[in-house]
Amino acid sequence: MTKMSKPRPISGFPEWTPPQRMIEQRFLDKIKSVFELYGYAPLETRAVEPLDQLLRKGETSKEVYVLRRLQEDPGSPADDSLGLHFDLTVPFARYVLENSGKLQFPFRRYQIQKVWRGERPQEGRYREFVQCDIDVVDRDTLPPHYEAEMPLVIGDALGSLPIPPVTIQVNNRKVCEGYYRGLGLGDPEAALRAVDKLDKIGPGRVAELLVETAGATEAQAKAVLALAEISSPDASFADAVRALGVSDPLLDEGLAELVEVVETAAAYAPGLCVAELKIARGLDYYTGTVYETQLAGFERFGSICSGGRYDNLATSGNERFPGVGISIGLTRVLGLLFGADKLAISRDVPTCVLVALGDEEHRRSADGIAAALRRRGIPTEVSPTAAKYGKQIRYAERRGIPFVWFPGQPDSVKDIRSGDQVEADASTWAPPAADLYPTIN
Amino acid sequence: MTKMSKPRPISGFPEWTPPQRMIEQRFLDKIKSVFELYGYAPLETRAVEPLDQLLRKGETSKEVYVLRRLQEDPGSPADDSLGLHFDLTVPFARYVLENSGKLQFPFRRYQIQKVWRGERPQEGRYREFVQCDIDVVDRDTLPPHYEAEMPLVIGDALGSLPIPPVTIQVNNRKVCEGYYRGLGLGDPEAALRAVDKLDKIGPGRVAELLVETAGATEAQAKAVLALAEISSPDASFADAVRALGVSDPLLDEGLAELVEVVETAAAYAPGLCVAELKIARGLDYYTGTVYETQLAGFERFGSICSGGRYDNLATSGNERFPGVGISIGLTRVLGLLFGADKLAISRDVPTCVLVALGDEEHRRSADGIAAALRRRGIPTEVSPTAAKYGKQIRYAERRGIPFVWFPGQPDSVKDIRSGDQVEADASTWAPPAADLYPTIN
Repeated sequence: MTKMSKPRPISGFPEWTPPQRMIEQRFLDKIKSVFELYGYAPLETRAVEPLDQLLRKGETSKEVYVLRRLQEDPGSPADDSLGLHFDLTVPFARYVLENSGKLQFPFRRYQIQKVWRGERPQEGRYREFVQCDIDVVDRDTLPPHYEAEMPLVIGDALGSLPIPPVTIQVNNRKVCEGYYRGLGLGDPEAALRAVDKLDKIGPGRVAELLVETAGATEAQAKAVLALAEISSPDASFADAVRALGVSDPLLDEGLAELVEVVETAAAYAPGLCVAELKIARGLDYYTGTVYETQLAGFERFGSICSGGRYDNLATSGNERFPGVGISIGLTRVLGLLFGADKLAISRDVPTCVLVALGDEEHRRSADGIAAALRRRGIPTEVSPTAAKYGKQIRYAERRGIPFVWFPGQPDSVKDIRSGDQVEADASTWAPPAADLYPTIN
Repeated sequence: MTKMSKPRPISGFPEWTPPQRMIEQRFLDKIKSVFELYGYAPLETRAVEPLDQLLRKGETSKEVYVLRRLQEDPGSPADDSLGLHFDLTVPFARYVLENSGKLQFPFRRYQIQKVWRGERPQEGRYREFVQCDIDVVDRDTLPPHYEAEMPLVIGDALGSLPIPPVTIQVNNRKVCEGYYRGLGLGDPEAALRAVDKLDKIGPGRVAELLVETAGATEAQAKAVLALAEISSPDASFADAVRALGVSDPLLDEGLAELVEVVETAAAYAPGLCVAELKIARGLDYYTGTVYETQLAGFERFGSICSGGRYDNLATSGNERFPGVGISIGLTRVLGLLFGADKLAISRDVPTCVLVALGDEEHRRSADGIAAALRRRGIPTEVSPTAAKYGKQIRYAERRGIPFVWFPGQPDSVKDIRSGDQVEADASTWAPPAADLYPTIN
């Protein structure tokens, strides 16, 4: 075997420790369970997509990792037309088109997978990370009430986790585009791209951009910024928009949809949603509601959960599947909270009981005790060696295993935190419920 | 938006339907839960490894997928020294070396992830698939009792799944190598490689190979085949080996270890393990016990769960971490059983209750009913439209959703399989336990 030098981490590819991974798994279980409570069915797509699929979103093309087989068979078709997916929306749109004949519409699915982006790593950005997506797509038309459902699911999912409170900021592309059109702006998409930079470059520079890139007059730029300033936790934003005196049918449609989203959320989860009319989202395929989510105390790191409505992503020939979706950036949430020491777990291993070993000859009977405990759902391991009991107890202590079992006549079990030791029978003893599994604190 | 032609599957990259994915998730939950009952801590490593790590196993090098960023930044370090992992053992060995200062040894971890192999696709072979691994590594030395533990964990994990029974075939490299040495064979590794082909090419051709490639005489070749014929579900294989009259200290050591594995399994899970002295495993890094697993009725597709002891995989400078591990090929198991129509699930979605809608104005109160049911853990969705009730019931029927809820004064709920309809209150009603979640049958 080749020896090797000590390996080192690769920037942008995080690896959690086993206790951190236990926390991540607990988060995944909670998120999955909320998604299923809402009836979303699970889907997992392959990690790779044909390059032409991945490049349909132009702006992200340089982030794509392309695959190549190390040793191509001569004469076999090249594999380098495949790349790793960089989100779960593009693969989902492809899946819907590929399987449209077999799926029942409206189709509600969730998808929790790693995605890869070959961007330059920076704080809070990863090259490999986990996303947790829900989407609803329908054939031909999609009722707008699904746009109101997304924040409710996310509110329940994130609310089930031991993390700071979140605020979901919502806007509607129709409001912006209708308003820009009503203003007489020639290039609403360029205006949207300028407004998207508001938090980064400030209103003065955005006004300049609007003039330079979207062909706005100074008065139009001012009016665009006036819209972007509007924000309310209830439907009052609609009055504030109307007070600006711009009128357009698309604007009215967008306002009605956004009012519905905000009012549904207010009825169901007060304080969860805020209409925030500066929210633009970078991606150009959104056509209705858009979402971003801020984690209290970590606002400067940007949105941890984003999405929106898209009408034209899954379209092939005469088939058209409008959809709406939202995606939790789980790796980012965990990275922020781990980095700030805000998440810990009560032990390093799932084990609740370590069965101590008087001598190696009794290993098989110790295995029998462990088996009896496991049959009743108690995570148990047997001591690695028949060392002195003090050393075996330290094995448990170093991992945070709360109980050590001593075979004998009768057996006894010791809570090594308190030192309490009691007689016990492997066919009946159980730990306190709070000790059965590691707990997040 | 670009329209696109109907996409097609990519050979070797399976995608399960949502009901199949529900089955896979149920399998994953069971496997994970058994691994944790034995105290294995979860680990997830990044999907990529430096190429030099991946190429340490020479024979698999041509299966590696190498990554390249579509648009490299000029002057940035090339990323194409990274490849996708093709198993979870090599990444685990790297992880142990990288983090040896932080880990507690012996270190017991499980790891469930996708792996990628750029091999030519064929029946039952995938380019992307899920493996479920457990390994124990220790610093410097690893007690052989961990070799006896692997089959017990796997027996419990696979035994918890609704699949045909399995048989774990075990052997020990020391038995083969010691026996070959005792026979006076010059190249025991070449002999092992020849024996590994026994099931494919038969004993006559293996005998020829032994002569051609391992420098065996005809008598030696015959003796090698005599060893490979030995098989027993108990420790009697050891007597059969000794009756062949070959003696070597390594052979004795291997026999003692293999007896321990088989006897532990017989005590704990009768019928699970068979000593099968022809089992060689292709990989050259195994140094002790090796495992293969056959699924009853699907033997011809090869092992669904394999592994072994390795003493030199994680070695760097003066650090040495011997280990033993075993890996369930979950995608292969599912592919075989789905292909044979042996696994189905009672519905296509997690939803247990569909709340019907009399008219669109009552959507918010229907949302309230759904919320009340979800709060008590009942997966619920609200009807997509206020269509005629017959159409809403068909929405539920097509997905296998068992109950439709009719808001009213009072509300009522209908089991659409039996047609039974009863008055119900969303704050107290519960479905029969068997209907709460989809069941595998």
